[in-house]
Amino acid sequence: MWLQTSCELKFSISCHTPFVLMLRPRSGAQQWVASEEYLLYPNVPAFEFTDDFGNLCQRLVAKPGEFTIYTSAKIKTADSVNQLPGGVFVEVQNLPDSVLKYLLPSRYCESDRFGDMATEITASQLPGYDQVAEIERWLYNNVSFQPGSSPLPVSATEVNQQKFGVCRDFAHLGIALCRSLSIPTRMVVGYLYGLQPMELHAWFEAYVAGNWYTFDATQQYKNGGYVAIGYGRDAADVAIYNQFGPPVVPNEQNVRVDLLPE
Amino acid sequence: MWLQTSCELKFSISCHTPFVLMLRPRSGAQQWVASEEYLLYPNVPAFEFTDDFGNLCQRLVAKPGEFTIYTSAKIKTADSVNQLPGGVFVEVQNLPDSVLKYLLPSRYCESDRFGDMATEITASQLPGYDQVAEIERWLYNNVSFQPGSSPLPVSATEVNQQKFGVCRDFAHLGIALCRSLSIPTRMVVGYLYGLQPMELHAWFEAYVAGNWYTFDATQQYKNGGYVAIGYGRDAADVAIYNQFGPPVVPNEQNVRVDLLPE
Amino acid sequence: MWLQTSCELKFSISCHTPFVLMLRPRSGAQQWVASEEYLLYPNVPAFEFTDDFGNLCQRLVAKPGEFTIYTSAKIKTADSVNQLPGGVFVEVQNLPDSVLKYLLPSRYCESDRFGDMATEITASQLPGYDQVAEIERWLYNNVSFQPGSSPLPVSATEVNQQKFGVCRDFAHLGIALCRSLSIPTRMVVGYLYGLQPMELHAWFEAYVAGNWYTFDATQQYKNGGYVAIGYGRDAADVAIYNQFGPPVVPNEQNVRVDLLPE
Amino acid sequence: MWLQTSCELKFSISCHTPFVLMLRPRSGAQQWVASEEYLLYPNVPAFEFTDDFGNLCQRLVAKPGEFTIYTSAKIKTADSVNQLPGGVFVEVQNLPDSVLKYLLPSRYCESDRFGDMATEITASQLPGYDQVAEIERWLYNNVSFQPGSSPLPVSATEVNQQKFGVCRDFAHLGIALCRSLSIPTRMVVGYLYGLQPMELHAWFEAYVAGNWYTFDATQQYKNGGYVAIGYGRDAADVAIYNQFGPPVVPNEQNVRVDLLPE
Repeated sequence: MWLQTSCELKFSISCHTPFVLMLRPRSGAQQWVASEEYLLYPNVPAFEFTDDFGNLCQRLVAKPGEFTIYTSAKIKTADSVNQLPGGVFVEVQNLPDSVLKYLLPSRYCESDRFGDMATEITASQLPGYDQVAEIERWLYNNVSFQPGSSPLPVSATEVNQQKFGVCRDFAHLGIALCRSLSIPTRMVVGYLYGLQPMELHAWFEAYVAGNWYTFDATQQYKNGGYVAIGYGRDAADVAIYNQFGPPVVPNEQNVRVDLLPE
Repeated sequence: MWLQTSCELKFSISCHTPFVLMLRPRSGAQQWVASEEYLLYPNVPAFEFTDDFGNLCQRLVAKPGEFTIYTSAKIKTADSVNQLPGGVFVEVQNLPDSVLKYLLPSRYCESDRFGDMATEITASQLPGYDQVAEIERWLYNNVSFQPGSSPLPVSATEVNQQKFGVCRDFAHLGIALCRSLSIPTRMVVGYLYGLQPMELHAWFEAYVAGNWYTFDATQQYKNGGYVAIGYGRDAADVAIYNQFGPPVVPNEQNVRVDLLPE
Repeated sequence: MWLQTSCELKFSISCHTPFVLMLRPRSGAQQWVASEEYLLYPNVPAFEFTDDFGNLCQRLVAKPGEFTIYTSAKIKTADSVNQLPGGVFVEVQNLPDSVLKYLLPSRYCESDRFGDMATEITASQLPGYDQVAEIERWLYNNVSFQPGSSPLPVSATEVNQQKFGVCRDFAHLGIALCRSLSIPTRMVVGYLYGLQPMELHAWFEAYVAGNWYTFDATQQYKNGGYVAIGYGRDAADVAIYNQFGPPVVPNEQNVRVDLLPE
Repeated sequence: MWLQTSCELKFSISCHTPFVLMLRPRSGAQQWVASEEYLLYPNVPAFEFTDDFGNLCQRLVAKPGEFTIYTSAKIKTADSVNQLPGGVFVEVQNLPDSVLKYLLPSRYCESDRFGDMATEITASQLPGYDQVAEIERWLYNNVSFQPGSSPLPVSATEVNQQKFGVCRDFAHLGIALCRSLSIPTRMVVGYLYGLQPMELHAWFEAYVAGNWYTFDATQQYKNGGYVAIGYGRDAADVAIYNQFGPPVVPNEQNVRVDLLPE
């Protein structure tokens, strides 16, 4: 399907503030960017680089005053999410080198502490895709979705204690559980068509049977319409914006995803 | 300055033909892409990856029939080209690791065979920027620009024999001469505002005094308005399109660069 | 100085166990490996790759039974550690792209939660090197070194609560504090000549005034004799060994560092 | 098999001369380095980095006078070379991104000019492994091996004219022919057990049926005992030493490869 996505961030800046942003989706194996815009008001010099995960990151210094970032894109993405019930677990020794880093614990996914819990949840499942699907189901049934519940990221351990959270929290706990079973898992931030309420979204991908598969424990049904902006180990790697100096939060954040005619 | 660039390539394809394209300028230290389009008629699945030089490359398979690629972008680029007369030669042992590869000979720049010639041309110059500027001047005065003169790339050695060529040929000979003096030099393809006749352009950058500087022996005066699409060792690395199978050339290639109001 | 380092790890393996190891120091800007050995008893197929941080990592599957890894190296390293009191803080917008990842929170360094504490500790210091030196001093005076106190890694938050730890814990807390001040900081594991008791060591490096500087809050005096094996964001990235499947710990770990005659 | 390899290079240096060396074999999928030495007489500061191809490269500045580099290694490598008659050609659109660069022409392999010749040589072969094997056979039968025949590298075009050469020349012509058939091909330099006369060797690898396969047109029979030091597009990428400034050639080069008892 063809989607028109947009994200507008409005800040009130009090002093010169360096930003590192991740707001430019890029074309890859799973989506094609036919057009995009990246506008700054007022305009300031901006520079782009590619991080270790292949994400396009933008650097700039915002000046005191109102500062607005507006990005939009027209993107072709899959109509439905690939599924592979029974997909086999890949033995660690057979994983590609580039995938190994997604086995390690990270800031918000303390996978070194979830081995027993993950084993218990997935006790009746075959190693691989079915374990991840069971973890996704468990999250959907046992963690309640509360929009706006964690302004600051909390870690998988904290999510597991509080048993509620936003999309990012579902992803963090899912990732921590999967990694503790030696399944490489990574976080994705981006857009989801039809999301309610509409905002930037986060989900996770697990590597089984030689490919990455999409999982999203915030949704009851697996639909298509995912548009990835960034990949990483967890929210620390894929922050839509990192700003340095006195804390700044957007006083407005407008996200839209519209279906385009073919 | 703000420029609107576009490039349209039209092919008549006789059999399924894999392409690797390099037509998406990316934001970097020297330019900012505010918006861009990348359209395929008819639409086919396309995938993108980043090569060793940081270029965004697109892969697709064109089907038999007419096939058109249309890309456009709105880009902010420098009003004028940085110059640094007297800029010092960087001793090889002090070059950054990442720059060393631009000292090696490459397909179209046989720098291992130009040492004597480069030494002679630059005999009266200080090592560094002034040597490169002298090589640029020598090229401008000794090689005649003949649009359309070499449909297939020829190498620096061949350019030096024939003493005429297109922009790509000027760049190749310039690069070969600079590298033979142990000055890292790379090729750039892209757009140049005001180019006559308007088409895709090629020039080179030399690393002196700790930075890359732009040189273009096809132009009498140093103006701004350069928009880079790809960087590499020579034309082999930065082909706008590589196609595999029976040879295909575009039967139409339309390039535009327009100045936008601020 | 020239050092002879060695590390022997002995495991009792109960089932086929995949390992990812990081035990091969590599030559770089700060040390030169003149010779090295990497022996496996019994010998099993082993493969090597380079991770995102440039570390050489080894992959193998250990068979049930006794399994010994013996590595040794003859290395030239600096006689003393570079210091730069007054070295200036680098504004985030001026940091090299490759250094930005060392500003992010990571598994064991929750830098997003240490801003107030770091600001308080370094209140009287100039931004940059002096802040880091003050944090190092604070750690040395406020955290007690207890060898063997944390068999499993604990995070900066936990170290800060318990106020004791091993070398790794000192590094994690130091890193979290520095990053919260927007100073890029990374973890190093390796050897230290003269360490008491002798074992593998961990310390941290901070990026100020355009270079990485070594800090080690476990040592009262700044001596030379550091040999780096791995660099990363924290202990999750630079584990000497990661093993997958049922937990395995070495039943013997012998580390030696001897001074060689010039 | 276990091999002991060594290479000693002796230079008479007349002025401070920067070197970039590639003399440290690294462990990878195909070989394991159990021990190695890298000695410089007189000792000078040396630094190491990894290039775009994953090779370990050493940088140093040699002082005027005698300068000797001695490297040795104990390496486990395959007893025999993998062969796969009938191995299928991989369609360009299905090649991994990282392999695409080995389709491009390079300094010494002008593959853009060998299409007709390669098609003719391999006319009776199935696309893929058998084409490469036929090219290897053609080279063995049509180019005569003359040790010491080309002190400076010559390109595939020149080798094809002169019809004689050293191992490097066989590899260059083989690579140019294979690439012109859209088969990714790369150059390898290293050691070969049993080579007559013993010296550093060069051969090539072609990517068919999802893997790299070894080809060596200088040898009548396919034996094992290959030890790779460096991989690249051609000799320009994998020079054992690049030196800058006035030309320097080793006045002595001693290479040994001995079989070790298991």
